[in-house]
Amino acid sequence: MPMPASVQPGSGQLAITQSFFVSATGYRNAALAVSIDRFQQQLSEKTGIPFRLKPGVAPALEVHAASGLDPVLKLGVDESYELTINESKATLTAPTWLGVLHGLQTFLQLVQTTPTGFAVPAVTIKDQPRFPWRGLMFDVSRHFIPVDALKRNLDGMAAVKMNAMHWHLSDDQGFRAESKKFPRLTGMGSAGQFYTQEEIRDIIAYAHDRGIRVIPEFDIPGHSRSWFLGYPDLSSGPGPYTLEGGAAIDPIMDPTRETTYKFLETFIAEMSRLFPDAYFHIGGDEVDGKQWDANPKIQAFKQAHGLKNNQALQAYFNQRLQKILAKNHKIMVGWDEILNPDLPKTIVIQSWRGQDSLAAAAKQGYSGLLSYGYYLDLMWPAARHYAIEPMSGDAATLSPDEKARILGGESCQWAEWVMPENIDSHIWPRNAVIAERLWSQQNVTDVASMYARLNAVSLDLEWLGLTHRSARAHMLHRMAGPADISALRVLADVVEPVKDYNRWDDSKGPIDFHAPLNRLIDAVYPESDTARQFAGLVQTYIQSNYKDQAAETRIRNWLTVWRDNDARLHPLLDGSFLLQEDEPLSQSLSALGAAGLEALDYLDKSQAAPDAWKTQQLALVEQAKKPGPAGLLLMVAAPIQQLIEAGASPKSP
Amino acid sequence: MPMPASVQPGSGQLAITQSFFVSATGYRNAALAVSIDRFQQQLSEKTGIPFRLKPGVAPALEVHAASGLDPVLKLGVDESYELTINESKATLTAPTWLGVLHGLQTFLQLVQTTPTGFAVPAVTIKDQPRFPWRGLMFDVSRHFIPVDALKRNLDGMAAVKMNAMHWHLSDDQGFRAESKKFPRLTGMGSAGQFYTQEEIRDIIAYAHDRGIRVIPEFDIPGHSRSWFLGYPDLSSGPGPYTLEGGAAIDPIMDPTRETTYKFLETFIAEMSRLFPDAYFHIGGDEVDGKQWDANPKIQAFKQAHGLKNNQALQAYFNQRLQKILAKNHKIMVGWDEILNPDLPKTIVIQSWRGQDSLAAAAKQGYSGLLSYGYYLDLMWPAARHYAIEPMSGDAATLSPDEKARILGGESCQWAEWVMPENIDSHIWPRNAVIAERLWSQQNVTDVASMYARLNAVSLDLEWLGLTHRSARAHMLHRMAGPADISALRVLADVVEPVKDYNRWDDSKGPIDFHAPLNRLIDAVYPESDTARQFAGLVQTYIQSNYKDQAAETRIRNWLTVWRDNDARLHPLLDGSFLLQEDEPLSQSLSALGAAGLEALDYLDKSQAAPDAWKTQQLALVEQAKKPGPAGLLLMVAAPIQQLIEAGASPKSP
Repeated sequence: MPMPASVQPGSGQLAITQSFFVSATGYRNAALAVSIDRFQQQLSEKTGIPFRLKPGVAPALEVHAASGLDPVLKLGVDESYELTINESKATLTAPTWLGVLHGLQTFLQLVQTTPTGFAVPAVTIKDQPRFPWRGLMFDVSRHFIPVDALKRNLDGMAAVKMNAMHWHLSDDQGFRAESKKFPRLTGMGSAGQFYTQEEIRDIIAYAHDRGIRVIPEFDIPGHSRSWFLGYPDLSSGPGPYTLEGGAAIDPIMDPTRETTYKFLETFIAEMSRLFPDAYFHIGGDEVDGKQWDANPKIQAFKQAHGLKNNQALQAYFNQRLQKILAKNHKIMVGWDEILNPDLPKTIVIQSWRGQDSLAAAAKQGYSGLLSYGYYLDLMWPAARHYAIEPMSGDAATLSPDEKARILGGESCQWAEWVMPENIDSHIWPRNAVIAERLWSQQNVTDVASMYARLNAVSLDLEWLGLTHRSARAHMLHRMAGPADISALRVLADVVEPVKDYNRWDDSKGPIDFHAPLNRLIDAVYPESDTARQFAGLVQTYIQSNYKDQAAETRIRNWLTVWRDNDARLHPLLDGSFLLQEDEPLSQSLSALGAAGLEALDYLDKSQAAPDAWKTQQLALVEQAKKPGPAGLLLMVAAPIQQLIEAGASPKSP
Repeated sequence: MPMPASVQPGSGQLAITQSFFVSATGYRNAALAVSIDRFQQQLSEKTGIPFRLKPGVAPALEVHAASGLDPVLKLGVDESYELTINESKATLTAPTWLGVLHGLQTFLQLVQTTPTGFAVPAVTIKDQPRFPWRGLMFDVSRHFIPVDALKRNLDGMAAVKMNAMHWHLSDDQGFRAESKKFPRLTGMGSAGQFYTQEEIRDIIAYAHDRGIRVIPEFDIPGHSRSWFLGYPDLSSGPGPYTLEGGAAIDPIMDPTRETTYKFLETFIAEMSRLFPDAYFHIGGDEVDGKQWDANPKIQAFKQAHGLKNNQALQAYFNQRLQKILAKNHKIMVGWDEILNPDLPKTIVIQSWRGQDSLAAAAKQGYSGLLSYGYYLDLMWPAARHYAIEPMSGDAATLSPDEKARILGGESCQWAEWVMPENIDSHIWPRNAVIAERLWSQQNVTDVASMYARLNAVSLDLEWLGLTHRSARAHMLHRMAGPADISALRVLADVVEPVKDYNRWDDSKGPIDFHAPLNRLIDAVYPESDTARQFAGLVQTYIQSNYKDQAAETRIRNWLTVWRDNDARLHPLLDGSFLLQEDEPLSQSLSALGAAGLEALDYLDKSQAAPDAWKTQQLALVEQAKKPGPAGLLLMVAAPIQQLIEAGASPKSP
């Protein structure tokens, strides 16, 4: 995963033994030797073999690249590779070293534990990406993400062949990139949580070694409160500003003062030197304009310049900004809202609105990236992200030239509800299916195959140091103490956080970004594998007309565990202030388990359950479907509902 | 854990809220601020609370130290502290900052998840260590341990109040400390795996910040093959030498040449500057003398100097060595074998032989450290280490002055069978009980209390980044592939590696230190919690005269899981070359499960089982007790044997 463009299985397999080593022909330099060492290290992690180069032994994998990595990675470079494996050796060739990096990751994924040893199957793979821009956006403003957490996620991106890290470095809640020219940006706008320029260069180098471009985003003129703590003159309102916010009016930058542009000239020049990529993201989203409306000078400016609304004022701002960027040899990227015919066609639109919006931009000559449907923070299941096709909707009707303007897409990790501890599980493994959507051919859409491969990739990702599976046990023990947590695990395995933006109700005021994220909702996975598998079992059982005994036995086993779980879990729930909110959930799970078992009993007797029973059980299901104070959805409610409904009106035997 | 010297429970508890913060009075400097920050960070990890200092809020924990950490830590400094917690605040006072560090760790251990929030119970603790030297030895020669793995283990040591890291830096299989004077030591003797001087200084500083002294060991004149690859003139034999070894004769340094001492003068002077601690370990163990016997020049030297045997020759060597160390202001430490009346009383004997050996040294005026019984690599259960009392045997009969010469002890992590991946599980949590033996009062010996507290400490240690529990799942998946591994976990939970030195049979030749450590024996824990708990249940059941229904139910549940496990596990075993050796083990477990259930059936009927049945079942037990090719012991065999024997001759109802 992602599925290669062409896979031709061969016969037999190539053994991975302790004398396995890689030799490189063609283009070589020190950085490339490092990437081969890294591959060998990753292979060593996966197999537990400390490889030893024995003189005179032929290489097991020969790598040939025609050219190296550019000092600054460019969009649209040939990323293709060919990997041929037979029983005696493997050969990896690619026109550029980027292709080699991708091919090495494919090789790693192919490594299997077999009855005779570690091995890769004989195969011929010809592969190249469908889209040249395959990114992941990290919001580091709402919750800061330390360097080591970013690095392990970059390793994860490289493993699934993503090639663009979009770094959302500023927002209302924090300014995270050190500026030497304007030290108060982080000095007053970061609460001490920011990246030094040295750390930024380190991340860029780390990403570069893995074939990943780094695109900075400084979101202006909205989402910019953190700038104003140190530099209040940039803002359109009176202030004072705090990182916590809480004001009714969202602060916006003042686009009418020349001093604003003078500031941005200096700032962008500094950041353009720091971030070598050709693209520079200026955000531009969600400018609500209330501060502009409330400021008489800004109103007067609009009138004087014939700017008839706030959209026109933002377009004026963006035009000025684009000239500054051009002077620094940067191409402007921004969210949907920056689209305006007065801007040159070189700019790139990142669309959170969808394929139609992207298609409209492409028709006007603008390039675009899809992020609609790829917001990881919305807690969707992998299958839902997987189904989002960039070329669907209006995009499907574009001409070939227009289609070529759709450069790819980016998954987005908005950071309202993540810390270093759980960010990995919010990104992985689901991000791998977005990576597949952007790399693999459009017809790669089989969901069952996707989930099977995702499971394997998920384990591979843990070898890279990602903690998307391993961190949960710690978090559960924090809630429950040192006691046996198996009953808590049973509950955690069948719930998912509420979806979309339902975790927070705006009537409660702004989110407290300093609140602990140590509840069950923070520890559980966005998608319940157990619930998905259980739903599949129920489908199988119903489709067999209740005759599949093996499926029924497994269903009964699950239902029994759930029915009995509340009694086991209760002492833990009672003993912890963090778990008390989960009591109704635990009771619902047990009630559903019991209801499901009763339904099966009726089905076994081929006798319809009484209406009163059905009414009562369906009321339980309705109750169980409410997220309640824990903000968690009981994902087995729907399949158990199917059993109840089947029990109430069984098909004839 | 370790249990404090005095604990007076109070009433109520102190809540840990988001405004919790620590203030320091008394001695302060930047390094101390760092230790408070680290404590606050550890508390944040444990609770998931990002603490926020709110102006005007009173501190929840006040810390007062009369003096700071010495730039070079000294043995025997006052490490005591007093910790008083009531419902409104906590106070920690200590004569030195070392005591503060210990008190902060005690505070962290007291933090609990309660029904009303995170809290520490009201309590007054007065605490000080029983012994001043409480160490852990890391062998980094047999398998190299990278800096990050050492660091997380130093955090673990600090958590259980150990204060000495003994760094076994050279042995036959590798020389691990960079020498600028003799670069070929690591250049030819480390296969590239060594610590630079910068890394060594980094580790020493890291340890210092946690109140831990660092004592280097360079093991001479035996265990020194790795020196001779780069400097063959140091050796007593002709060579040539390789790290792999394989020669019949163990290489030893040549104590008869003046050039050897010239080399050591320069080397020890360099290392004495690098390692600031007052103590310097020269090894001195297991000098078999065969190379000396085979070398006519050495024989001639012995005769010329009236050295009547090889022990006398080693004593001559040690006397010369001791003078070099003294010139560098270092106190010599060595293993039992260096004990000789010609050496000054200042030296320290580290005893792998036992308390009697230590007592004999103390009577002669020598200081000593106990390591007998504290070898973590022997795979003993925690209770067995816990029972090793330094002041028992002949040591119990010493005079007070002689007793004072027993400075403490060190657990030893010899590294024949560890990698960075599993070293944590070979050290933790068992090392915590050795730490308790060396810190707590002699009468703290209750095993049930020890295991209960060990379980809690084990979880706390994972917050520090130790992987003694979390790494196993990765290793099991490596063997089994991405499939469900719950059946493999069931097997892994009830086995332990063979004990003592039984993993390796010398008739197989020398150990291959480059072989992969990726088998089940490498992944399982040294001690099976499940087996211990099951044995306890069986005890309870038998002692109830088979009337404890709750115990019987739980026993039956376990036996049923085991009986059914082989069928579940079989596909995994068949599919993996790494698991095939575990097939007999898995079959034995299932057979034992079935036998145990049959025994319970007989007991339930109060009817003696036939003799033939008993004979057959006990044969199964005998079979199950053999480690077989997997090198694993089925730890539930003994309690199941008890059930079988009880079933064959039940007590009267």
